[in-house]
Amino acid sequence: MLFHVEMTVNLPPQLDAARAAALKEEEKAMSQQLQREGVWRHLWRIAGRYANVSVFDVESPAHLHDVLSRLPLFQYMTMEVTALCRHGSSIRANDQ
Amino acid sequence: MLFHVEMTVNLPPQLDAARAAALKEEEKAMSQQLQREGVWRHLWRIAGRYANVSVFDVESPAHLHDVLSRLPLFQYMTMEVTALCRHGSSIRANDQ
Amino acid sequence: MLFHVEMTVNLPPQLDAARAAALKEEEKAMSQQLQREGVWRHLWRIAGRYANVSVFDVESPAHLHDVLSRLPLFQYMTMEVTALCRHGSSIRANDQ
Amino acid sequence: MLFHVEMTVNLPPQLDAARAAALKEEEKAMSQQLQREGVWRHLWRIAGRYANVSVFDVESPAHLHDVLSRLPLFQYMTMEVTALCRHGSSIRANDQ
Amino acid sequence: MLFHVEMTVNLPPQLDAARAAALKEEEKAMSQQLQREGVWRHLWRIAGRYANVSVFDVESPAHLHDVLSRLPLFQYMTMEVTALCRHGSSIRANDQ
Amino acid sequence: MLFHVEMTVNLPPQLDAARAAALKEEEKAMSQQLQREGVWRHLWRIAGRYANVSVFDVESPAHLHDVLSRLPLFQYMTMEVTALCRHGSSIRANDQ
Amino acid sequence: MLFHVEMTVNLPPQLDAARAAALKEEEKAMSQQLQREGVWRHLWRIAGRYANVSVFDVESPAHLHDVLSRLPLFQYMTMEVTALCRHGSSIRANDQ
Amino acid sequence: MLFHVEMTVNLPPQLDAARAAALKEEEKAMSQQLQREGVWRHLWRIAGRYANVSVFDVESPAHLHDVLSRLPLFQYMTMEVTALCRHGSSIRANDQ
Amino acid sequence: MLFHVEMTVNLPPQLDAARAAALKEEEKAMSQQLQREGVWRHLWRIAGRYANVSVFDVESPAHLHDVLSRLPLFQYMTMEVTALCRHGSSIRANDQ
Amino acid sequence: MLFHVEMTVNLPPQLDAARAAALKEEEKAMSQQLQREGVWRHLWRIAGRYANVSVFDVESPAHLHDVLSRLPLFQYMTMEVTALCRHGSSIRANDQ
Repeated sequence: MLFHVEMTVNLPPQLDAARAAALKEEEKAMSQQLQREGVWRHLWRIAGRYANVSVFDVESPAHLHDVLSRLPLFQYMTMEVTALCRHGSSIRANDQ
Repeated sequence: MLFHVEMTVNLPPQLDAARAAALKEEEKAMSQQLQREGVWRHLWRIAGRYANVSVFDVESPAHLHDVLSRLPLFQYMTMEVTALCRHGSSIRANDQ
Repeated sequence: MLFHVEMTVNLPPQLDAARAAALKEEEKAMSQQLQREGVWRHLWRIAGRYANVSVFDVESPAHLHDVLSRLPLFQYMTMEVTALCRHGSSIRANDQ
Repeated sequence: MLFHVEMTVNLPPQLDAARAAALKEEEKAMSQQLQREGVWRHLWRIAGRYANVSVFDVESPAHLHDVLSRLPLFQYMTMEVTALCRHGSSIRANDQ
Repeated sequence: MLFHVEMTVNLPPQLDAARAAALKEEEKAMSQQLQREGVWRHLWRIAGRYANVSVFDVESPAHLHDVLSRLPLFQYMTMEVTALCRHGSSIRANDQ
Repeated sequence: MLFHVEMTVNLPPQLDAARAAALKEEEKAMSQQLQREGVWRHLWRIAGRYANVSVFDVESPAHLHDVLSRLPLFQYMTMEVTALCRHGSSIRANDQ
Repeated sequence: MLFHVEMTVNLPPQLDAARAAALKEEEKAMSQQLQREGVWRHLWRIAGRYANVSVFDVESPAHLHDVLSRLPLFQYMTMEVTALCRHGSSIRANDQ
Repeated sequence: MLFHVEMTVNLPPQLDAARAAALKEEEKAMSQQLQREGVWRHLWRIAGRYANVSVFDVESPAHLHDVLSRLPLFQYMTMEVTALCRHGSSIRANDQ
Repeated sequence: MLFHVEMTVNLPPQLDAARAAALKEEEKAMSQQLQREGVWRHLWRIAGRYANVSVFDVESPAHLHDVLSRLPLFQYMTMEVTALCRHGSSIRANDQ
Repeated sequence: MLFHVEMTVNLPPQLDAARAAALKEEEKAMSQQLQREGVWRHLWRIAGRYANVSVFDVESPAHLHDVLSRLPLFQYMTMEVTALCRHGSSIRANDQ
């Protein structure tokens, strides 16, 4: 099932630069792994903001929470979660 | 280029039922035509609301406005438009 | 899986009283049927408002949307949907 | 009587990690004790957020405040309290 | 127990003047009866608005909802309910 | 004349604990003195929040500001002030 | 004492034009009478909106409410009231 | 001097179609006249909304209000006005 | 021309007390100088808040920005600016 | 294509003054370079705020994000991006 997540990153100004860079690298690696597994189905940057729009394909809200709360930047992100379902006018079989 | 659009439909209670049904049919037909053309790339229903989350692939903001303002339900919808771009961590070539 | 839904009813002042009463009766009947089936797991009135807090136990967001959009008062209600999951401190096995 | 409480946790980034871990353990222990006593009737995680939705069964608003303000994480939480009552369509005797 | 209620009245412009006047009279009578019974403990007009701040002394949230939802103007009012309790610095015995 | 004030306390996490305790004691003493003088007419805790609802009986807005701005916790509080007046339906002579 | 009031006028589209014109004339007359009496001390149009910023010099919140609620357009206006007092840096004796 | 204005048009659904078309024609004519005179310096459509972003070059706030309040669609528009001034980093002489 | 400005002061808790006192003194001196020059036409304290409502009489938005941005507390203040103009019902010649 | 961007700068109070001055200088230089290249088409100061209204002429949302995210003050700015298109009533050929 699909969930739409808008993530906004707020790194505190006093965060150590090396620590921030390491977190971003880990975040990228985990994000790409989840994309390869088909869990993180879409990922777009919002133009002009340190934020993204994502669509996750998970087994349940618990699965979604498990995935999101393990992200290295989780404690620095605000998440807005919206449950999606297939639209009656959609012609794409897998946009369920 | 991609734009994220959240559309919420607000049909006035006094709208004639037959007129409403006709508008929805026309909206569905035009939506499916735009999906076949690749312009309306994604379309999901937001669970519990008469609203959708969509991603459009257009040539410009002007093209986007032209598409949206021709929708049969346009005058009854609130649109929230967000410009998207490729995310540095994305592994999908066409989620540009 | 569980979804938290806050529903607020806004009946237009010009709605015919008999029609409103009939809709409320149908809404009540369908709500009680869904409660008996275990789909509408909790239902509470918010004190002082024509609104309720509910918890639904459904198979998917699509199932949730199907249930909510068939409610007789659906077109007169504002819905706020939140995906829930089991809390790490919960001691209740079925509050999953 | 029942009160609906949405709690959001905001731990300051500079909080010592050991202190944070200790507070969370104490919070969990007190939460489970209150659940066993029937005071903290429901507890769900909100998917994707460090937040929960809870329902408390207390004797009065004063009792509710006493319970909430003793939580180890109280000073780091934002609470939104809503008074609930039995819904006219409810079929559950104890969802008073 | 005490609940703080802010009520704002929104009479639709098309409401018949005689009907509006009758509703206001009934509202006033019921309000004064509830004040005499000690249920509607405080009632103040908010300067410059068709709105009031009230404090109710009731037995439960259900009692509060019962009282509020029977008010003749209930369907035309927006209610904001806040549960109160005795303040640790209060010197008034009955501001419980 | 009466003013309704909702005060929310936001103590910064880095505030020294002894200093915070001293401020709260001074606040309590001043609050009780003002209650005895009849200036701070009502004081209630908002259940679940470090906040209160108060009603002040003062000679003017200037008097109100003088009282509020001398409170020991003033710099850590957010104040929302509303001017009240006697309600046409009130039966209490002194709820002017 | 002084109160700052921001008034926004919302005439319903279905209001009869002659009736609207008559109300505006009465509003103007009453406003000018109150200005001559020194009660309506300042009156400015907000550029680009059917709204004004005003300062009233009244004896009490009750006096303010009495003045505002008698305005011919009162039922079509949203009022935002703020209590003012003399500023410690002011050099004008009568801006009390 | 320059003012930034965001205008959103809200035509009531019951407005007669011929009347709406005539108002839009008059609005367009007046807008183009003001552009030719240099008063309405910039005019852009906001993609996906019946709204525009404009920059006006006027002699005073009074001049701005005079221009805006004469627009044929004025009573159906929400205006958000922001005063602009030359930016210290600007290299354009006339963006004062 | 006149601009309405609501200023709210937010001094960071860690600001040195002597530095804060010095800034306030400089602010007061500059404010009184601007009042004497007729630029800062009105200045009122908002009751209960560290905030003021002011009316400035300046030559242009650029002049306004120049005045406001030189205030010693500027970096600690939130400013809300509204352009004013003479109201059609005003009887005061200089409330232009 | 054109994008409207409102930028608000929030420098943390603890930022070193020399560092802040250097960042502002770099920001100014980059802004002027982008203006000369025609990418940063308009730049206005919002009167009374450390904020600007800008219009960018870019090739795509990705181009816009690239430009904005390289600004020296980017991490201290809140950006609000709006896609613009040519207005049907515009008489300027290049306000596309």
